[in-house]
Amino acid sequence: MSDVRLRLDVAYDGSDFSGWAVQPERRTVQGELETALRRVFRLPAVSTTCAGRTDAGVHARGQVCHVDVPAETAEAVRSWEELTGRLARALPTDLRVRRVALAPPGFDARFGALWRRYAYRLCDEPAAADPLRRHEVVAWRRPLDVSRMNDAAPGLLGEHDFAAYCRPREGATTVRTLQELSWQRRPDRIVEARIVADAFCHNLVRALVGALIAVGEGRFDVGEPRRILDARTRDSRVLVVAPHGLTLEEVGYPADAELADQSRRTRTVRGPL
Amino acid sequence: MSDVRLRLDVAYDGSDFSGWAVQPERRTVQGELETALRRVFRLPAVSTTCAGRTDAGVHARGQVCHVDVPAETAEAVRSWEELTGRLARALPTDLRVRRVALAPPGFDARFGALWRRYAYRLCDEPAAADPLRRHEVVAWRRPLDVSRMNDAAPGLLGEHDFAAYCRPREGATTVRTLQELSWQRRPDRIVEARIVADAFCHNLVRALVGALIAVGEGRFDVGEPRRILDARTRDSRVLVVAPHGLTLEEVGYPADAELADQSRRTRTVRGPL
Repeated sequence: MSDVRLRLDVAYDGSDFSGWAVQPERRTVQGELETALRRVFRLPAVSTTCAGRTDAGVHARGQVCHVDVPAETAEAVRSWEELTGRLARALPTDLRVRRVALAPPGFDARFGALWRRYAYRLCDEPAAADPLRRHEVVAWRRPLDVSRMNDAAPGLLGEHDFAAYCRPREGATTVRTLQELSWQRRPDRIVEARIVADAFCHNLVRALVGALIAVGEGRFDVGEPRRILDARTRDSRVLVVAPHGLTLEEVGYPADAELADQSRRTRTVRGPL
Repeated sequence: MSDVRLRLDVAYDGSDFSGWAVQPERRTVQGELETALRRVFRLPAVSTTCAGRTDAGVHARGQVCHVDVPAETAEAVRSWEELTGRLARALPTDLRVRRVALAPPGFDARFGALWRRYAYRLCDEPAAADPLRRHEVVAWRRPLDVSRMNDAAPGLLGEHDFAAYCRPREGATTVRTLQELSWQRRPDRIVEARIVADAFCHNLVRALVGALIAVGEGRFDVGEPRRILDARTRDSRVLVVAPHGLTLEEVGYPADAELADQSRRTRTVRGPL
């Protein structure tokens, strides 16, 4: 009997995980998720693929993954809601599967994704400090000028080689398309970045945020983040900010009919895993 | 030299505190706060009074307290912002002083308060589960009918003897005025109660919430919470719900000119501490 593919929508508090990807001797999101899936499905092994392999300490509200299971395993599921409940009981409380369902034909959580949206959150005012949010909001001791940060951000939008802002990986391109990068001071005074790209290379969001924070503090002029981008080499003045301010909020996919095409296109552009 | 009174606006994640009030051998909010105040002010002892003595596990975003310090200690403060920063560094990260300033004449954090506003939060849908909020949102396994809960709530409003919903305390009245009690399902699907009263007796919010949850689940009819109130005796069917869903959000005080009058009125009605 053949395999069928399931789509899982996953949320986690990254504080106590060594990131997404399985590592020996470490508590990882993938490791805990696969343990729960093996137990609930009574399978000897399962292998998950996710849209955004988050680093240690990074959170997710909108992570998407897929897993292939034998068709008879999927057919034995009484209802997806009931399965979600069983997964909830098998998972630790810092990791939740919000939804699980049969994936549409051609679905690939990683290569089928059109875009990933991240948020980065900071609190630069003691009066706005919220201890209940301290795991996902970085306390910043100097005041940030959000309007300056928004003046600097558009210079980074579009398709670029982001080598200056990435930790390079052998044989992988650092060309990405940054679709959105904007800052707001929310009504509760939290400073929040919204960052959307087709995909992100390693450390990219946290380095971009670091460069824009330098603008917000007045250490960089508004044109500096773009000049650093154009130089295409890493700049030691750019701080890679703390992971716990970062949350993967949403992953976008094309309409079901386009899924297979999108996966093929992505594989061609970005090369094999 | 005489003492001067400071007002402190305080927020905390109650998860790791044995409640507000100092207890020997326990980590409490008051204990940690007074330790930080002693250190920052270099005083041998300080004594704080708060508006709402929260139980173990209960959070606060809008707790208010006062502390009396020698006038020369207050005069040595260069700026209240700078003092807030020093307190932030002296406090653990789950406890923040958002603001500290000279209290207006006649201010008393406890007896001067006109009302306390609490929120209680539940998540009854796996699809809305947010692990980053698990410390302040109670996961509820059965679906809640918010509209039924809102039908039952008005029957509890007004001045009543809330003995049926309180853990009694020797010599203290259980008469309170419940000013607001309403439920909403927020855009993120979290079920949230907004509860305002002149003051709360012990366990009152959590017992009222427990009774209304029974209505939301269909175990109680809409009139039952009021019938229990009128019986004036504790009812074992009313669950005192978990503390971690509860947050003290705000405390209201009269205009500065009325402060002394309000404190006098409250002391008369509720008797000595």
